This record gives sequence, structure tokens and C-alpha cells, in this order.
Amino acid sequence: MNIILLEPHEVTENRAKISDYRCKHINKVLRAKTDDTLRVGIIGGNMGTAVIKEISKHEVSLQIISTYPPPQKANIKLILALPRPIILKRVIAQATALGINAIHIINARRVEKSFFNATLLKNENFRPYILNGLEQAIDTILPTITVHKKFKPFIEDYAPPKLPNEQRLIAHPLGGVSLSTISPLPKDQTLTLAIGPEGGWIDYEVDRFKETEFTPLNLGPRILRVDTAVPAIIAQLCLLKELSTS
Amino acid sequence: MNIILLEPHEVTENRAKISDYRCKHINKVLRAKTDDTLRVGIIGGNMGTAVIKEISKHEVSLQIISTYPPPQKANIKLILALPRPIILKRVIAQATALGINAIHIINARRVEKSFFNATLLKNENFRPYILNGLEQAIDTILPTITVHKKFKPFIEDYAPPKLPNEQRLIAHPLGGVSLSTISPLPKDQTLTLAIGPEGGWIDYEVDRFKETEFTPLNLGPRILRVDTAVPAIIAQLCLLKELSTS
Repeated sequence: MNIILLEPHEVTENRAKISDYRCKHINKVLRAKTDDTLRVGIIGGNMGTAVIKEISKHEVSLQIISTYPPPQKANIKLILALPRPIILKRVIAQATALGINAIHIINARRVEKSFFNATLLKNENFRPYILNGLEQAIDTILPTITVHKKFKPFIEDYAPPKLPNEQRLIAHPLGGVSLSTISPLPKDQTLTLAIGPEGGWIDYEVDRFKETEFTPLNLGPRILRVDTAVPAIIAQLCLLKELSTS
Repeated sequence: MNIILLEPHEVTENRAKISDYRCKHINKVLRAKTDDTLRVGIIGGNMGTAVIKEISKHEVSLQIISTYPPPQKANIKLILALPRPIILKRVIAQATALGINAIHIINARRVEKSFFNATLLKNENFRPYILNGLEQAIDTILPTITVHKKFKPFIEDYAPPKLPNEQRLIAHPLGGVSLSTISPLPKDQTLTLAIGPEGGWIDYEVDRFKETEFTPLNLGPRILRVDTAVPAIIAQLCLLKELSTS
């Protein structure tokens, strides 16, 4: 945990009292004392520095003494065919840490249908994994997460012509262009990236993505599991943007 | 599992019989029958296609009918401060899938000392996690893994001047150059990449890496956990190589 995140309702006149896992972290990991300063952030708002006014095993009182804006998001939307729930938790934290703006969890032919019945998906309680990613990467802004249980209505939402500054990509091992051919990538470009299920997309799905202006992206001969593929591709897209401005 | 890996001793005159988790995978996941073809690979050797000669719940007999070389490695050595063992297992599989040639697991001040007493580290039994990475990425060549329990003797091994076509990088959030400044990266360049522990390197360690010609690499304001950082940085380095030849 590289930042202590506070809910907006916990903060009154720049002061907050916390008593849960964050209190434990401040005591056990940071071993902080009265008058020490900590990096804090208000969820959905600014980050900043807080000083510890009082501390016990059970409660920490903080006073925020300076604030500054969180880091910029990557301007990338991720479309993810639902993976195994344990992997989904990890990928939500990873994608959040990498600064993704939005995640659309979708269905596809080769998604195991039982995954949609998992408690995580039924409750759509993704917040702990999002917070985990924000706490890791030092950020305060939650990405949005939307679950689409049917492929067709989802893809139809993407039917309108894409925006002039939008690039849509679908990872697909068969055919497609390599990332180097979409370079340079303007820094302000909105990217939408679709990543398939373990068994891959079926032809029908790839065709529908193509119809909605997604370009198939060939990532080479190595097939990566989703929790390796997501950080790999997002990091490469961010680097292409960085290169275009350097 | 995207390839069935065979131990060299299991293959005689292009025939092999298997009866463990691979047999179960062929039956349960691939639902294969006699005369079906499968992608196979001989560990340390070529990959190829095999036909199923006989199949039962308990045993599969394969005949290899064609072979071709495995994909090229990335020409990257990874130096990794020992993470939590559960994360190490994951990172070994990820780094293997990404085509890393060698992993040096090292000690550092902020590595939790108890991690070296974990069963995984005591037995140095990394092979299942390596095979997992190869089976995912469709490869047959194992990376080497070496454990170094002391930082100083390890870094002294790196003291000789680096090779003309070697680039040494140490990920470090404070200072350093961005990846875009080391672009272009010749395709045949050997890269050595050092990634620190959760709490970061201490100054002494960074100084010793600098003395042995490691360039500090600044990866931006977002601090990534090692199982996100490893795929992210390796993928970026591979992309920089690809860009220099396209």
C-alpha cells in the first residue's frame, strides 16, 4: 500500500479518523508515530500529505496539510472477455494500477458460463480490487467497471463510427497487424483494447469487432495468459504514446 | 496449456506415452480422440505436431509427425529481488512465457529475510512454474534460474565491463531516464533488467548497480507490483527492439 486512501465522507475540514486495515497498515508496516507524515488521497479527488495527530492500535487521526492532483489516466478502455474470477480480481487491480479509465467485462463463446455465476460477478463488488490497484499505484480515481452478460448487445453499443481520435484494437493471435505498425500513437489518442478469453475469440466475434472498426493486433507467437497480456499490451500502448511526444 | 511438453527421455523413435496431468488435459480439456493431432514440444528441443495413436483415461500414446524450432527468446536477463514466494511462482511463469533467457533471484535490504526460508527457495524447485510458462506461451526452452542469497557477491559477479552489445537497466522510481530515451534498441542487444523489492532498492544497492554500468530507469509515477511490472517492462523492451527493425 503506497497511499492511504480516504473516503470523501471520512474527511471533514481536512481531518479524518480511520480504524480499519489502513490503521493496521500505518501501525504494523509503516510503524508510524504522532507527527509523522503520510501520503494520503481522497477517493475521486486529490492526493496529498497528512500528518498523524493521534495514533493508537485501533485508530489514527490524520490532518491533511497539502494536496495535489492524482496522476493522469492512460486514456485506455479495456474490453475483457470474462476470465476465471480469481484472475479477474488480479486483472482489475493490475489494470487500475496501470491507469486504465474503464473496464468492460464481456461474454464470449469461449467464456466458461459458470464464471458469470461467481459471487464476485453476481454482486459486482469490484471495489476492493480497484482500491488495491489505486493503493499500489498511488492514484485516487476509480476506473468504471461494467459487466455485459451478452455479447451481441454489447458489440452493438460500439457500432457508432469511432471518434476521430479513437483507435480500437482487438488482440488476436491469427493475422492482424503488429504494434509497431500503429506507431506513432498521438498522446491524446483514446484507445479501446479488447482481450479475448483463454481459448481465444471465435471468428464471428472477430468479425463483429472488425465491423465496429477494431483493428486485429498480432502480438507474436507467444500466447500470454490474461494477467500477463493485460500489463504487457497496456504498457506497450503507453510507451508508443510516450515515444510520439519525446 | 497450449502445448503438450514431453521430457526427452519420454520420446523414443518419435513416440511417447504420457499418463499424468497432460493425459488428463488431453482428455478433459482438449477432448481429443485417436488420430487427432496435437501441438507438442520436446523440452529443450523442437516443437511439432503429434498424432494420437491410442487414448484412454489413463494413458495417451503419441507419434510425432513433424517438428520445427521453438520461438526465439527475448535476449533479456532478469534480476529480481526475491518477492513473496506466491508472487515468485507467478513471476517465474510470466517471465518464462515472455521469453526471458535467465532469472537471477537476489537478496536486497528490503527483501523479507523469511522468504529465503520458504520451501520453494530451499528446494529451488522452480521447474513446475517454468513449465507452466512454457506450456502457456508455446515454447520448449527453459530459462535458467539462479538464486543468490547475498547481494554483494552477486553484484561483484557483474563487475566486469559490460559487453559492447549489452544494455543494463535498473528499475528505480527516483530519478533515472525514461524508456523512450534508450530508444532505438538494436534487435540483437542483450538486455539485463533489475527489478527491486516491494519497498524499493536502498541507495547503496542503486549505487552498486550504477558502478556496474546499470542505468536507472524511471517508469513514471505509478508504482507497480512485481507481477505487473515484470510483464510491463519486458513487453516495452521487446517493443523497442521491434521498432528499431520495422
